[in-house]
Amino acid sequence: MSAETNPNEYDIPPTMKAWVLGNPHEMKLIEKPVPAPGPAEVLVKVGAIAVCHSDVEVLHHGYPAMIEGELPFNKDFVMGHEYMGTVVKTGPGVDEWQPGDRVAVEVHAGCGRCEKCREGMYTSCHNYSYRSKGHRANGFTTDGGFAEYAVNNINTLVPVPDHVSDCTATLIVTAGTAVYGLDVLGGLIAGQSIAVAGAGPIGLMFIAVAKALGAAPVILSEPRADRRQMAKTLGADVVIDPTAEDPVEKVRKLTRGKGVSFSVETSGVPTVVNQVLHMTHRGGKVCLAAFSNELIPTDLAYVVSNNIYMFGIRGEGRSAVRRAASLFAQGRVDPTPMHTHTFPLEQADRALSYAEHQTEGAIKVVVKMGDHANP
Amino acid sequence: MSAETNPNEYDIPPTMKAWVLGNPHEMKLIEKPVPAPGPAEVLVKVGAIAVCHSDVEVLHHGYPAMIEGELPFNKDFVMGHEYMGTVVKTGPGVDEWQPGDRVAVEVHAGCGRCEKCREGMYTSCHNYSYRSKGHRANGFTTDGGFAEYAVNNINTLVPVPDHVSDCTATLIVTAGTAVYGLDVLGGLIAGQSIAVAGAGPIGLMFIAVAKALGAAPVILSEPRADRRQMAKTLGADVVIDPTAEDPVEKVRKLTRGKGVSFSVETSGVPTVVNQVLHMTHRGGKVCLAAFSNELIPTDLAYVVSNNIYMFGIRGEGRSAVRRAASLFAQGRVDPTPMHTHTFPLEQADRALSYAEHQTEGAIKVVVKMGDHANP
Amino acid sequence: MSAETNPNEYDIPPTMKAWVLGNPHEMKLIEKPVPAPGPAEVLVKVGAIAVCHSDVEVLHHGYPAMIEGELPFNKDFVMGHEYMGTVVKTGPGVDEWQPGDRVAVEVHAGCGRCEKCREGMYTSCHNYSYRSKGHRANGFTTDGGFAEYAVNNINTLVPVPDHVSDCTATLIVTAGTAVYGLDVLGGLIAGQSIAVAGAGPIGLMFIAVAKALGAAPVILSEPRADRRQMAKTLGADVVIDPTAEDPVEKVRKLTRGKGVSFSVETSGVPTVVNQVLHMTHRGGKVCLAAFSNELIPTDLAYVVSNNIYMFGIRGEGRSAVRRAASLFAQGRVDPTPMHTHTFPLEQADRALSYAEHQTEGAIKVVVKMGDHANP
Amino acid sequence: MSAETNPNEYDIPPTMKAWVLGNPHEMKLIEKPVPAPGPAEVLVKVGAIAVCHSDVEVLHHGYPAMIEGELPFNKDFVMGHEYMGTVVKTGPGVDEWQPGDRVAVEVHAGCGRCEKCREGMYTSCHNYSYRSKGHRANGFTTDGGFAEYAVNNINTLVPVPDHVSDCTATLIVTAGTAVYGLDVLGGLIAGQSIAVAGAGPIGLMFIAVAKALGAAPVILSEPRADRRQMAKTLGADVVIDPTAEDPVEKVRKLTRGKGVSFSVETSGVPTVVNQVLHMTHRGGKVCLAAFSNELIPTDLAYVVSNNIYMFGIRGEGRSAVRRAASLFAQGRVDPTPMHTHTFPLEQADRALSYAEHQTEGAIKVVVKMGDHANP
Repeated sequence: MSAETNPNEYDIPPTMKAWVLGNPHEMKLIEKPVPAPGPAEVLVKVGAIAVCHSDVEVLHHGYPAMIEGELPFNKDFVMGHEYMGTVVKTGPGVDEWQPGDRVAVEVHAGCGRCEKCREGMYTSCHNYSYRSKGHRANGFTTDGGFAEYAVNNINTLVPVPDHVSDCTATLIVTAGTAVYGLDVLGGLIAGQSIAVAGAGPIGLMFIAVAKALGAAPVILSEPRADRRQMAKTLGADVVIDPTAEDPVEKVRKLTRGKGVSFSVETSGVPTVVNQVLHMTHRGGKVCLAAFSNELIPTDLAYVVSNNIYMFGIRGEGRSAVRRAASLFAQGRVDPTPMHTHTFPLEQADRALSYAEHQTEGAIKVVVKMGDHANP
Repeated sequence: MSAETNPNEYDIPPTMKAWVLGNPHEMKLIEKPVPAPGPAEVLVKVGAIAVCHSDVEVLHHGYPAMIEGELPFNKDFVMGHEYMGTVVKTGPGVDEWQPGDRVAVEVHAGCGRCEKCREGMYTSCHNYSYRSKGHRANGFTTDGGFAEYAVNNINTLVPVPDHVSDCTATLIVTAGTAVYGLDVLGGLIAGQSIAVAGAGPIGLMFIAVAKALGAAPVILSEPRADRRQMAKTLGADVVIDPTAEDPVEKVRKLTRGKGVSFSVETSGVPTVVNQVLHMTHRGGKVCLAAFSNELIPTDLAYVVSNNIYMFGIRGEGRSAVRRAASLFAQGRVDPTPMHTHTFPLEQADRALSYAEHQTEGAIKVVVKMGDHANP
Repeated sequence: MSAETNPNEYDIPPTMKAWVLGNPHEMKLIEKPVPAPGPAEVLVKVGAIAVCHSDVEVLHHGYPAMIEGELPFNKDFVMGHEYMGTVVKTGPGVDEWQPGDRVAVEVHAGCGRCEKCREGMYTSCHNYSYRSKGHRANGFTTDGGFAEYAVNNINTLVPVPDHVSDCTATLIVTAGTAVYGLDVLGGLIAGQSIAVAGAGPIGLMFIAVAKALGAAPVILSEPRADRRQMAKTLGADVVIDPTAEDPVEKVRKLTRGKGVSFSVETSGVPTVVNQVLHMTHRGGKVCLAAFSNELIPTDLAYVVSNNIYMFGIRGEGRSAVRRAASLFAQGRVDPTPMHTHTFPLEQADRALSYAEHQTEGAIKVVVKMGDHANP
Repeated sequence: MSAETNPNEYDIPPTMKAWVLGNPHEMKLIEKPVPAPGPAEVLVKVGAIAVCHSDVEVLHHGYPAMIEGELPFNKDFVMGHEYMGTVVKTGPGVDEWQPGDRVAVEVHAGCGRCEKCREGMYTSCHNYSYRSKGHRANGFTTDGGFAEYAVNNINTLVPVPDHVSDCTATLIVTAGTAVYGLDVLGGLIAGQSIAVAGAGPIGLMFIAVAKALGAAPVILSEPRADRRQMAKTLGADVVIDPTAEDPVEKVRKLTRGKGVSFSVETSGVPTVVNQVLHMTHRGGKVCLAAFSNELIPTDLAYVVSNNIYMFGIRGEGRSAVRRAASLFAQGRVDPTPMHTHTFPLEQADRALSYAEHQTEGAIKVVVKMGDHANP
């Protein structure tokens, strides 16, 4: 978390390499000025950045929550939000962080002046994407991390201890989404049953975090065999292949006919949503953590007649990333096996392609700055 | 709440008049033994009972939550759950209530031995409909109130003061659903915006209770003009005719473009569900209090990307009916205008028909025992 | 809420009259520059300001939460936090408020960058009193409202409708403390029993708000007869004179021997604390809203053996003042009777003296700018 | 959890050995009829039982929450509540448990008919100690486990897997108190700081559970060196000797001057209470889990001015014991090192004496039935 030498004297060049969006589907490596941190901000030298499925979405379509008409193409916009690095400069009035601090990031800095930010729900900021109001969502509405440097609000940094590798540290923010989802479900999951549908990175991270926090049993439903295997590695007690058996029946069988207390939908597949609802017992809680672009035929009658609560989460929140970082630091969550591929910054486009197409079974593809032989 | 004379000496006849289900769509007035209260139970002499849309469902189809295969037809089953009356006999060990106490009812008595009852979520009882485990849902799984007498678990009674009329008191349980729904939404609605879709009895009661508890503005969307008028009578600040203007646009206009903090869906109409979601601001909360029999194409992407929480409620819960009764007693909620028609017990079938077909603009149809000239 | 004419053209003089602290116990009326609003701030022309007991504390001793050694004496510091007025100028980037808006205030603007602010608990800001971090507590750590003008963070303003008088509007922030206290107790107070100890302005406001939100019964214990009378005016169902009867016994008698669900301690008197605890039933909740300067011999064994929860609140929070303002606007809370005395700005010292010594039965003493004949 | 042979045919003798209270300070081993399980009850053959400090209290003074005047002396009352064993007979209508099930116990079965039980707060039952209303608190108000057999309500049993030894399983209920305490504090302790004062069995269990759930750092303050060592064994990150250094200063130093988010008082020592408060940061939460018999001079001004919440807990609750059992089953909490001494049933009096006087450094003293060589 601390630099050994000359912590306050980092040489910061005037320009940096950065991948920016061109036309839709196009990303370009350019030279761009290194940004300067303002009040309540720091400059981070990026160490590594993982590719998220959202990055692929942004590359092709822009992002749904952007201000209407404000598509990010051909604006020198830098994608990428799952990064880590080192604080190299602090903005005016910042003493919360020091140059040399090793950090991972959280995506959202709320405006601090809307109703939801005042409630602490900064990821529901009512000034979402209004930079002038102070909102930042790096990699979505403000420049992100596929670059040598990035500016972060001080609230969007969490400490990373030395024994967590750069590549693993990029996964902290993803784990933060899982921690947040479980927080939203009430947080008291130790000893409670949980089912997760979908073993993408988010689903796998829910498995790992739920297991670390004592949920039992932790059940996964996922059609891909390699992902089921990964889920077992990360702590799933039971894995279900929904193409081979009815996942709802199986979950009910595992829970004396009742269903689980908590369930999480991470697939975005319409038919899976109702499976997840039906896996959940009367009075149970469901976290929706993925989305498709279509209306989903949903069994809301089941929701109503069984007093089900459904919680949509668009990512992390309520400082859950900080709590996730602590679980990494303690070694209670170690998703290193999910990190399957590494590329240098110059090949970030290839990294996105690997992630998009799951080339060679890619799960988490990481772009590592500098000497990427060292994870 | 107290009887004036001979409170402990009620003459209880051996048999009573009761409406029971015959074949589907058929209800019959028969003579039936007066039931005896067991431990933790009392016998109530029914004073009045309102018709709920659920009664109509039970009459035609039975009820979804009944044990599979256990349809209620031709079993001398007594429908009806929105009643009030007088305690006339107490079961063994009961001192919580005395003969002469004037009471309204709550539907559900949980088993007290499942995971959810242990959490206080007795309306999500995992032994729903298992009478042998102690569960009761009068009018659904155990005999209800279209009869001269009914047995109630002591937990399902709430006091009714003398100044609340019999007919109005039958509406306490409906108000309890609204109180419960607002409790589930977090309870802190004073000064917060709320939109209700649908002005059936449940929707109207949400209006009345939300207003009584200080929500502002209270907005209703409902296509029927007479119901919009009733909503205004009960406290709606703004009413919207969704056939004349876009209710989502209107709600957003009323809330500086953001949407309401809380919304309630009481219509069960598929297209309305997404309207309700889209009326709700980022980070807002939605109560689902009605259900249709089909899958509803739902904009879950909106739910996820806006951190919306959706709460299904199948009726009242967590002693909200008791709190509703207090609001009636204080005169803070007075839904008397919703009570549009009264029939004697002998015409309960006609009462159901009026309620089902909204004959003569019927909203709440009440069956009044004895001298029904006195409301 | 809006000014009719020339809303954007207010003549703002370079200097203003302001009462500042001299030595302890001394306040002086001086001429001082009108402050300029910064980003996320506005300038308010003060219309009226009420005296709070905290002002008296600050006058004599400074304030406990100030940075150690940073006593406010002889620093031209302006006291006063219970004020209302009109927005006359907005800072850079502010469109949330317009010149001409009629507003009341909330005391605290958190730093927005500490752990607690990130949770929405801005009144627990970990950078309390650090102006450089963005924290403001007008009248405590930053200049307050015993002056012609004051600067406010945009988060610390709430709208005031025209039909609420200037003097009454000064009481919104006090009501906000009561709303917040009831929120902290869980918010579901409709139909629940509550006891309040002490009928100072805070205690009286708890009475008024609890009543407005449907608590029943609302019980007050207070030795002063005139204050008990005022409590009845504001909605208390039962008032107890603790010098004439045992308030614990009385409360238990009123609640079938059990005690109330919720209780509030607003007296700061050591012996009263245990009374309040003992008034509260097993599993009940207690709000502590006053403090003395001594250790209080507390029956914590009762707290532990009865699963009591105790919630300290130092004032308002979580936007409760905004909700309070709505209750005023709706006419559901009207504490106008508590406003007993009015003085012009030139006599603010006399106003404080009246409040401190409860001269002529003073409860809320208000300083009214300009034509103070108009309340 | 399962019996190997003849699960439904246990030979149950008519009488059993049981330790009962004689005069105060006196316990006697007698022969007593084996009790019969009623509805919603089972008979448990006790396998092992740990001594709790409360047992010592009951032996000498009876128990504060007993019905007034109903002291337990000379009534053949059986103490003891921290036991485990095997279900050997089920009461009428019970299918939740089967003969042969290996179980540990929870102390409280609420009445199921009071306001608090209806909320799920059965340990705050308003019919506490009224057996006729259905309340049980084995070892306090109904016969406990210093005997060969005991009757338990089905809600007060949790499953114990084979790999958890009898003696360790007696500690599940103690762990349940810690799980409950952390639940009451909000449950989101992963990655949050926590300080525990006192390393008695409850304090040690808070350490073990907080660590298992990811709290960091976990800090203990305790004057006894051997107990500090035990705390480190169970997971404390930092231990403080309050006789050697100021524990408040130390905790503040460990937390950048702020104090911890959560703290737990388990000592019952008056001076320690304020230490615990002052260790807690602004807006933090305190669990009070011990009690003395005197009024405790408490710095409530600190509580109020810092928005501290204090939660009294008299033991376990809200099914936390079930969650604790799961943590044992998963091996995430293993307090086996706390178990220091074992005695046969015939020496239960000696076991209590060891526990009372901490003879030979006794922490948890267990009475093991039958072959006590096998733990």
